[in-house]
This record gives sequence, structure tokens and C-alpha cells, in this order.
Amino acid sequence: MKRIIKKIFPKSRSNEDGIFFGKIEKIIGFKPVTLLFYQKAFTHRSANRTDDNGNPLNYERLEFLGDAMLSSVIAAHLYNKVPTGDEGYLTKMRSKIVSREHLNELGRDLNLVAMVDSKVPISNFGENIHGNIFEALVGAIFLDKGYAFCEKFINKKVIIPYVDIAKLEGKVISYKSLLIEWCQKEKRTFHYEVFDDNGNDGQRFFGVKLSIDDKVVAKARATSKKKAEEIASKRAYFAFQEKINTK
Amino acid sequence: MKRIIKKIFPKSRSNEDGIFFGKIEKIIGFKPVTLLFYQKAFTHRSANRTDDNGNPLNYERLEFLGDAMLSSVIAAHLYNKVPTGDEGYLTKMRSKIVSREHLNELGRDLNLVAMVDSKVPISNFGENIHGNIFEALVGAIFLDKGYAFCEKFINKKVIIPYVDIAKLEGKVISYKSLLIEWCQKEKRTFHYEVFDDNGNDGQRFFGVKLSIDDKVVAKARATSKKKAEEIASKRAYFAFQEKINTK
Repeated sequence: MKRIIKKIFPKSRSNEDGIFFGKIEKIIGFKPVTLLFYQKAFTHRSANRTDDNGNPLNYERLEFLGDAMLSSVIAAHLYNKVPTGDEGYLTKMRSKIVSREHLNELGRDLNLVAMVDSKVPISNFGENIHGNIFEALVGAIFLDKGYAFCEKFINKKVIIPYVDIAKLEGKVISYKSLLIEWCQKEKRTFHYEVFDDNGNDGQRFFGVKLSIDDKVVAKARATSKKKAEEIASKRAYFAFQEKINTK
Repeated sequence: MKRIIKKIFPKSRSNEDGIFFGKIEKIIGFKPVTLLFYQKAFTHRSANRTDDNGNPLNYERLEFLGDAMLSSVIAAHLYNKVPTGDEGYLTKMRSKIVSREHLNELGRDLNLVAMVDSKVPISNFGENIHGNIFEALVGAIFLDKGYAFCEKFINKKVIIPYVDIAKLEGKVISYKSLLIEWCQKEKRTFHYEVFDDNGNDGQRFFGVKLSIDDKVVAKARATSKKKAEEIASKRAYFAFQEKINTK
């Protein structure tokens, strides 16, 4: 009977699962199918969970999988993006993008630790937990939705906001200064409005609205004012570049 | 006008391209779409080729891409195949599978060097050329047909014939001895028939037909008799295991 009900309402889930589903959907940008993969991605070994077969249920194996997927998606992106770069260049650029430090930053900005199931206080984890959970999340997306969705997620969360060839090569130091320079040259006014933008998760976030000629052209949210301004500047800069190029 | 003709006969190609197309199709097991990717995969830097934009045209960048794809396909395979293996185990198993030595063996067995466009005699290349071209080929398949075909190719050419968890863990030394043991236990007769199986490419290959109770149950082709016997034994062993398990 239970099975029949499950068939009729295959998507019915507990309230707790429903909340988790909503949070995951918000982070990944599409509806997850199998919640278990994501639950695993957010379970620390200290929670001592096991699956139905008695195997440890935590994010460590997913980290391995996510790391591999990140590497290949970034490899393909660099291959296509930089046709002049040789093997050594591509390898170097990729290690900059998937560096421990960078992955920690990505995970921290998404505030993934707030969702971790653990018996140890989060403050005990150290910095690497952020990157580890981020990798595990990528692994979960791969298992749940396949390579194309993995690519989509990495594109949205890593490549678009953070991967910048010019910056990685050290040619551009700051998009904020690049944008200001451009505004001055084009005789346009600009204005950064910074405000507190805290979720209900206790971590401090900053929001930025960037206006050019009194019109909001880009928004961003990050863990520091400087970072939020930089992201908004980059978004605005590329939006204008595109406009100029398609004119 | 040329453009119109190209539109009407988009698949028309030169005789040389036609031969290359056939060879590639035979190796990868499906029809390639964009030959250029594969031509690149088989072009050594000594050929000094460049593309329309003046960028060097050789397999080195594709090697980087193929290496990443191999790593992620093997990672996903191991993740699913060994649910009890932790991160350290998975990492170790993957490095065994994608070791330089192993990749060289894979490339050598497919005799990929026979197709390489180079100004340097093939005998000057050293052993690593085999693995490098194999990686480049995987990269070309990814660009041409996407991740799923890449997975399919790696499954067929790497995982099914070569990846064997029990063997990688050192639990099984030889499938030939395992099969002989099984035949003796089950009171069955067995017979290995070895024959020369040379392509028209000059390299020596061996074919093996393995019969059990006078019926051919498995075939294999490899660069040594021992290897061909081992592959045929493994195929037969798993075919029988499956039969037993589904009874």
C-alpha cells in the first residue's frame, strides 16, 4: 500500500526534506531529482551516518568525484577560450582556478557550511571545509543530473563570476579601476551603493548596486564590500563591452 | 558558389579524408563529425602545421583535454563501481588506471602511431607517444561528440578490456589461471587457438580464440600472445559469471 501511495505521490516528501530541497534548488539553480546525493554532499564524517548497506555516508567520496568534474569542465573551458595557450599554459591556468584557496572562496561565498550536518562545531573545521563541500556538491550534481548540468553549474558559479583570463594572467588587476577609467573616458557618472545583505544564516554579506548615469547596471553579493564591488564592476564592464562589440 | 556547393554536399570530402574518416570510425566505433579534431589528434608538432589563425596545429593541447576527460570518466566509473572505497582508495586506483605506462599500452594496442603525421621518424618518438596520442584522441572525441561519447569510448577501450578492480587491487593475478581453474572444477574442456592477426599497418598482432567444450566463447586481439589470451580469458570469465548470476 505504501508503495502504491509512493507511486501516486512520487514527489511527496517530509517537511524537513522540503526545506532542504528548496535550499539546494536555490544554490544549484535547478530542481534536484535525488535528494540523497545532496544530503551526502552536506554530511560530515563526524555525523557517523551510514547508508542501507552499511557504507559510510558523508561527502568525502563525492569530493573526489566533484574534483574530477571541476577539472574537466575547466579544462574544456580553457581549451576553447584560449586557442593560443599551449599545454603548459592550460595546466597552469587550471591550477589557479581550482586552487584550494579559490575553491574555499567559492564555497564560503555560497555559505555552504551553514547546511552541513556534523557533530563537530563548524568553527572547528578550518578553511578547507568550504572547498571540500563545494567539490562534493559538484559531484552530487553530476550523479543527480549528469555532465551537462555539472557544466552549467560550474559555468554559472565558477567561470562567469570568477574565471577571468586577463586577471589570471595578471593583465587586469581590478575591474573596478578599469570601469572607473572607462566611465571617465566616456564622460559618464558612476555610483556604487553598498548595503548589508544578510541571509537568515548569520553570515555577513554585502550587496552592491552599481549605477552608471543614474541607472542600475549591475548587482552583486559577496562576503566583503570590495569583492562585491569587484564582481559588480566586472559584470558591468563585460555588459558594456558586449554592447560596444555588437554595435 | 563554392559555399552553395558545400551546402548541397556538406559531407563530400577528398579521397584522402575519406580514408582517414574510415580509419577513425574503425578506431572510435562511431562516425566522426568534424574530421579536423581527429586530424589534430594525429599531428605531431614536428609537422609544423598551423590553423587558419596561425595557431600551432598539433595534438599537444588535445592531450591536456583528453587527460582531463579520462580522469573524470574513470573517477565516475570507480565511484559507482566501488561504493566501499574511500577517497584515498579511489585516487590510488585511478592513478593506476591512467598511469603513463597504462596509457602507452592502450595507445600501442590500438597502433595509433601508424596514423601520426610527423616529420620525425616514428621510431624516434619514445614510448610516451602512444599514451599521448591516446589522450589526444579522447580530447578530439569530446570536442566532436561531447562527454557521453567520450564516456562510451573510454568504457569500450579502457574500462571493459583493462580496468579490473580485483586485478588492480592485486587480488587476481591472471584471468587465464582463474578460468582454467574454473574449467577443471566444472569438468569442462578448454582450448586457446593463437594466430597471427596483422593489420596492413606493419605491426605484429596476435589473435586468440578461446573455446570451452569445443565452442568458441571469446576472442581477443593484442600485441602479445599472453595479453591476447588474458583478455579472452577475462571476457569468457565474466560472461560465465554473468550466466551463473542470472540463473
